[in-house]
Amino acid sequence: MLTDTALADLRALFGDRVSVAGPVLAEHGQSESLVTAGLPDAVVFPSSTDEVAAFARWSTQHRVPLIGWGAGTSLKGHALALHGGVVVDFRHMASVIELRAEDRLVRVQPGITREALNHELRTTGLMFPVDPGANATLGGMAATRASGTTAVRYGTMRDNVRGLTVVLADGRVIQTGTGAPKSSAGYDLTALFVGSEGTLGLITELTLRLHGQPEAVATAVATFGTVSAAVDCVIATMQMGLSPARIEFLDTDTVAACNAFSGLALPLAPQLLVEFHGHSEALAEDLRRFHDIAMSHGAKDLQSADKPEDRTRLWAARHAAYRAILASRPGAKAVVTDVCVPISALAEAVEDTRADIAASGIRGPILGHVGDGNFHAILLVDPADAGEVATAKALAARMAERALRLGGTITGEHGVGFGKLGLMPAEHGAALGVMAALKHALDPLGLMNPGKVLPGQP
Amino acid sequence: MLTDTALADLRALFGDRVSVAGPVLAEHGQSESLVTAGLPDAVVFPSSTDEVAAFARWSTQHRVPLIGWGAGTSLKGHALALHGGVVVDFRHMASVIELRAEDRLVRVQPGITREALNHELRTTGLMFPVDPGANATLGGMAATRASGTTAVRYGTMRDNVRGLTVVLADGRVIQTGTGAPKSSAGYDLTALFVGSEGTLGLITELTLRLHGQPEAVATAVATFGTVSAAVDCVIATMQMGLSPARIEFLDTDTVAACNAFSGLALPLAPQLLVEFHGHSEALAEDLRRFHDIAMSHGAKDLQSADKPEDRTRLWAARHAAYRAILASRPGAKAVVTDVCVPISALAEAVEDTRADIAASGIRGPILGHVGDGNFHAILLVDPADAGEVATAKALAARMAERALRLGGTITGEHGVGFGKLGLMPAEHGAALGVMAALKHALDPLGLMNPGKVLPGQP
Repeated sequence: MLTDTALADLRALFGDRVSVAGPVLAEHGQSESLVTAGLPDAVVFPSSTDEVAAFARWSTQHRVPLIGWGAGTSLKGHALALHGGVVVDFRHMASVIELRAEDRLVRVQPGITREALNHELRTTGLMFPVDPGANATLGGMAATRASGTTAVRYGTMRDNVRGLTVVLADGRVIQTGTGAPKSSAGYDLTALFVGSEGTLGLITELTLRLHGQPEAVATAVATFGTVSAAVDCVIATMQMGLSPARIEFLDTDTVAACNAFSGLALPLAPQLLVEFHGHSEALAEDLRRFHDIAMSHGAKDLQSADKPEDRTRLWAARHAAYRAILASRPGAKAVVTDVCVPISALAEAVEDTRADIAASGIRGPILGHVGDGNFHAILLVDPADAGEVATAKALAARMAERALRLGGTITGEHGVGFGKLGLMPAEHGAALGVMAALKHALDPLGLMNPGKVLPGQP
Repeated sequence: MLTDTALADLRALFGDRVSVAGPVLAEHGQSESLVTAGLPDAVVFPSSTDEVAAFARWSTQHRVPLIGWGAGTSLKGHALALHGGVVVDFRHMASVIELRAEDRLVRVQPGITREALNHELRTTGLMFPVDPGANATLGGMAATRASGTTAVRYGTMRDNVRGLTVVLADGRVIQTGTGAPKSSAGYDLTALFVGSEGTLGLITELTLRLHGQPEAVATAVATFGTVSAAVDCVIATMQMGLSPARIEFLDTDTVAACNAFSGLALPLAPQLLVEFHGHSEALAEDLRRFHDIAMSHGAKDLQSADKPEDRTRLWAARHAAYRAILASRPGAKAVVTDVCVPISALAEAVEDTRADIAASGIRGPILGHVGDGNFHAILLVDPADAGEVATAKALAARMAERALRLGGTITGEHGVGFGKLGLMPAEHGAALGVMAALKHALDPLGLMNPGKVLPGQP
């Protein structure tokens, strides 16, 4: 609860851009996760870095938590106000500030979504490739170190954020990075804030790397008899040094959901969707090599989608897979979880997960960005059925523990939020103490997105 | 000066692997920079992470600075014992621990050099591409966030270190990163330690990304009438989306030195050395496109080096350029400096630097990894001539200030050491306070490589 003084001070800063209205609080108290939490005490809608800095000073003065909010699409409750506090909704900071086409850079505000950014770039020959599926904001994507289908070729947000403007807990404003492609001048603060989930600072501006729109695109769909054959094909593709722009695995259950939801007629069997970007001479060779690898791994069918409309339909279906899977069990909610493992352990990780889910009695289609060892399970549960929810959570925990045993990570791209807090000690051991020391150094009062990333913090 | 007790305790830990012999101290009190500093009080030669941890506890107990030492090839005095203390020489920790070819990863100890590592990899089809020129150690390369000729395609150490074992000031040992290609589980500690120049921790193990040895290689040398034509050709090459594995600029003065030192007969004019890696179908197209771009930028001559021995000779000469330039003025020492700018500002940065050097009265060949906006000046001085030394240092400072004005960084790959301490506030502003807070959080006693990276620290 905000004190009257605190609220009055906040209104002095934001006028009618602070809200305590029930529907606004409710909107900012929801998430894609199953977890429910209390509502924030207020929501503010800043329009500049200076306003965010003033807000942080207010937060420090009144000892009120502050939580950043982009599009609300995070999956682990990243933006929920666990301890009350004020949510900072960046919807009014959603502009392209400067396009520097010659340097393949763009400066944006944090509230712009990836689709809006790419729409603005559409006539420039450039694109921002990182694509987590949801139409997330760039600020949120940086804060969660998002990646997605194209990371196998273009990298994650770690690789595509060149610099940031960050507001610290005490209202200081810092710039990280430069316009140069690389630097060895001091600590890599950009990388520290990317993936910090709003616990170290609020991102109010981003300089992003852009990439050329591909000259040509080749897409293929390969059908396999077994999950392991499909996964082994991915492993061989990566080990042979091919560089697909995307290489996505869909298990039979996912394929069935996509067929029903998006009107496709893919064979009901494990599939790989593969895409190559490049000039056409290189693409033909890439596709030929992939064809050989797929066939030698027992692909039963390999079709290339040569027409742009066919490609679009396939990738739209892939993007809709989460909704398709949800729709396949009306009324269900999903425990969505991801892990990432070394590519050599991918087959074992997927197969053991597949078997674990099959034995659990609940449905959980598996799909993922397997080119970098990253896959997801969408565990479908009746949210009113405590047994199902517990089963799904136990499955997700075992999936993360399995990933750790295989040398991987508890989350490749979804982040920690508070959904995976309990798994952090197993992954990081003593390094978690270093993370806590960094947190304390930058946010000694523990006001920035409290209760996230680091277990045992206030 | 170490107390008798401190030295006795150190000998108890390291036996005859601690040295206070004059020649050993002198060897570890030198650097490639012009700066001279006092000698370390002792040098230790650990053989395991546990020994380094015990050494760090000793350092904390006795309040003695500790300074990591790889191959001694850093250019900004990174490894000099400015305030006395003990140098940790990693020469006995120089092994490959584990090759994981199927994941394209290798675990190494910090003292292995890049040439030794690639020698061990030679029959695997894999390579570690980061190449700063000197045969540096991997630990040193990670600590300084090194890059070099191939960074334009394969990235810098930032991009190629997957995980680390780090000993903290108080002797704690942490692991960063996992074997998975990506993770969003918490703060990116790997990126924090890469480039921290031994001021936050000592790296005792590295997991590195490997890359496939290229199926085919195409090398070309293009000769231009002017510096600006050569640089504009680079800018166009990058903006057109070509992806050279290396694209190096040599000014006429550098070419003359290389011809004399390495027995080449390159035309005395600005040159670009370009290399493409890939499969042969793609390479032919890459080379054709580069040819067109070079010709449209007035290249007077474009020769491809098709024979492996010709390629080797060219790149050996490029690698020897620093020694070649030093040899071109017998008795001279060099102030070696680097900056990195946005590619759009590269022509202006190089030309203004060229003019500034020309007006200064000293010689300073320019060369660099221009594909990522990074270039070097090798400012030749008589070390006994204080005027020349001052002129060179002023030129280097203006070069860095010019890079900042153009949106770049004071150093693309050499690092800060203490040679560029004074320029850090201009680049980082308030962010320098964040770096200092991180330093204090991890090394509250200021014992790790004191006097480096952060101005105003003890």
